[in-house]
Amino acid sequence: MIKPYTVGIDIGGTTTKFGIVDNSGHILQQDRIPTNEHEAVEEFIEDLYDKLFPMIEKVGGISKFRGIGMGAPNGNIYTGAIEYAPNLKWKGIIPIASLVEKKFGLLTKLTNDANAAAMGEMMYGCARNMKHFITITLGTGVGSGIVIDGKIVVGHDGFAGELGHTIIRPGGRIHKSTGMAGSLEAYASATGVRETAIELLTNYPEENSLLRDFSLNELTSETVYECALKGDTIANDIFEFTGQILGESLANFIMFSSPEAIVLFGGLTKAGALLLNPTRRHMEANLLPIFQNKVKLVFSELKEADAAILGASALVDA
Amino acid sequence: MIKPYTVGIDIGGTTTKFGIVDNSGHILQQDRIPTNEHEAVEEFIEDLYDKLFPMIEKVGGISKFRGIGMGAPNGNIYTGAIEYAPNLKWKGIIPIASLVEKKFGLLTKLTNDANAAAMGEMMYGCARNMKHFITITLGTGVGSGIVIDGKIVVGHDGFAGELGHTIIRPGGRIHKSTGMAGSLEAYASATGVRETAIELLTNYPEENSLLRDFSLNELTSETVYECALKGDTIANDIFEFTGQILGESLANFIMFSSPEAIVLFGGLTKAGALLLNPTRRHMEANLLPIFQNKVKLVFSELKEADAAILGASALVDA
Repeated sequence: MIKPYTVGIDIGGTTTKFGIVDNSGHILQQDRIPTNEHEAVEEFIEDLYDKLFPMIEKVGGISKFRGIGMGAPNGNIYTGAIEYAPNLKWKGIIPIASLVEKKFGLLTKLTNDANAAAMGEMMYGCARNMKHFITITLGTGVGSGIVIDGKIVVGHDGFAGELGHTIIRPGGRIHKSTGMAGSLEAYASATGVRETAIELLTNYPEENSLLRDFSLNELTSETVYECALKGDTIANDIFEFTGQILGESLANFIMFSSPEAIVLFGGLTKAGALLLNPTRRHMEANLLPIFQNKVKLVFSELKEADAAILGASALVDA
Repeated sequence: MIKPYTVGIDIGGTTTKFGIVDNSGHILQQDRIPTNEHEAVEEFIEDLYDKLFPMIEKVGGISKFRGIGMGAPNGNIYTGAIEYAPNLKWKGIIPIASLVEKKFGLLTKLTNDANAAAMGEMMYGCARNMKHFITITLGTGVGSGIVIDGKIVVGHDGFAGELGHTIIRPGGRIHKSTGMAGSLEAYASATGVRETAIELLTNYPEENSLLRDFSLNELTSETVYECALKGDTIANDIFEFTGQILGESLANFIMFSSPEAIVLFGGLTKAGALLLNPTRRHMEANLLPIFQNKVKLVFSELKEADAAILGASALVDA
């Protein structure tokens, strides 16, 4: 008889979320631990074990599990290692899949966190039954998962799908951690929205704005959203500009792989139509006619954490 | 016994090339006709038949053939039709595969011309044994064929791989036939090199240049190349700039699909190292470290016409 459960683990820059998933894609239990508290990955795995093992015991123990699937930044499906992740404390090449496999005594597979989210979207989200789509996560950074012919695109070395680092404004804004100029992530992330806010407030000192009542520390994508809802011009301009950059980038991605849909995830999507409308307008305006009015641009229906846990867990049977 | 021959047909904007291909990938005979002499595609097919049918007879007749494969601009593998090709006289949707199939009484398949070239490269060129690569044709326009997991990427509607139309200079040079601003094709094509030449000669009126001895009509990528070889500064700057734009675009493509190699085809590649060196430099400079010094950037070893004929012929068995 097929074992009824898998574990899905989503390692994020700040928090690691994990859950027990049954064969219908329900998350039976879930919990979280901080990702970056320990210099040594072994200590992180101890923390994980302390929380996760009791959950496994509760549903009948290891013998009921087919395996563990993990998503992590720069997680490589070919090697099972996290390789040079800029936002994690663990530097260099971390063979995390084999470490977790040894600790739990369960088959363990790893992939990129954004690819795990795309897999969750394909199995349980609004990309069900789609064979060609792209997911873009608009959070602290910009992640992406690309599906072609029903398969996640990983490329010859496992690193495909770094769309957040593609250049959309050559010579433009410098990305703080990569040093690259004009990458999508420098604009269409929570960090990018904050930078755009600071730029516009500085460049138009005479323009009134509710945003001027916030301290620099309080200036976040959330405060910009609140002010935009109240009709603040600069706040609305910030989303218009963010949507322009994102829309132009999406047009380029569409002309690469001609997907049926683009699914947007992550914190910035809370801005709803304020972000979606300019994004769609600039996306369509930058497409060749053969691609226009064809590609669905939608927000994910899944909770972000759920998509990542479900997607990671689906790795076990992939 | 398997029938020994296929036909490969490459429909270009100006010329249509076709040949008879044996099972080892040798082109036994080949010929060409102009593409754009007739308003009606049926008359084009008559011309084709008049030249091609005697070639077929010469090697033993229709019964020796498994089928016909065709590559054409905007050729759609799903529908067998050329759909809204901007550079052809035949407007709208042209169901050319079924017309040719009827005329010759042979199974006929169609794909995009750039995809046919990529298939030729995969079967007989320097991408043999590669499962992940991108071909870029630098001719009058910029075409592309993308291979992932050993398969040509066609997307949900057959139109994937229009990399020449991706935007690399938002708000930049207007592309004459698409009206788009700042697309790769507006710069890294023979037409683009000519435009860059005119721009630089106009913007730097005091700078001496051999290029000033040519009439506007004579100012082509070939004359720019000849002058660059003679050490002309502006001519060298033109290739430096073209390589910069191309290199930046290639970096973006690499971060999408992480290919093993990028294979360059087409007239502009005659510029050799003058184009290749700046392209490679700017490509590497715009890649995340995990992608650097990994991707082969090479010129095709196949004659361009051969690659297209061979690739189109390979469609028959795909």
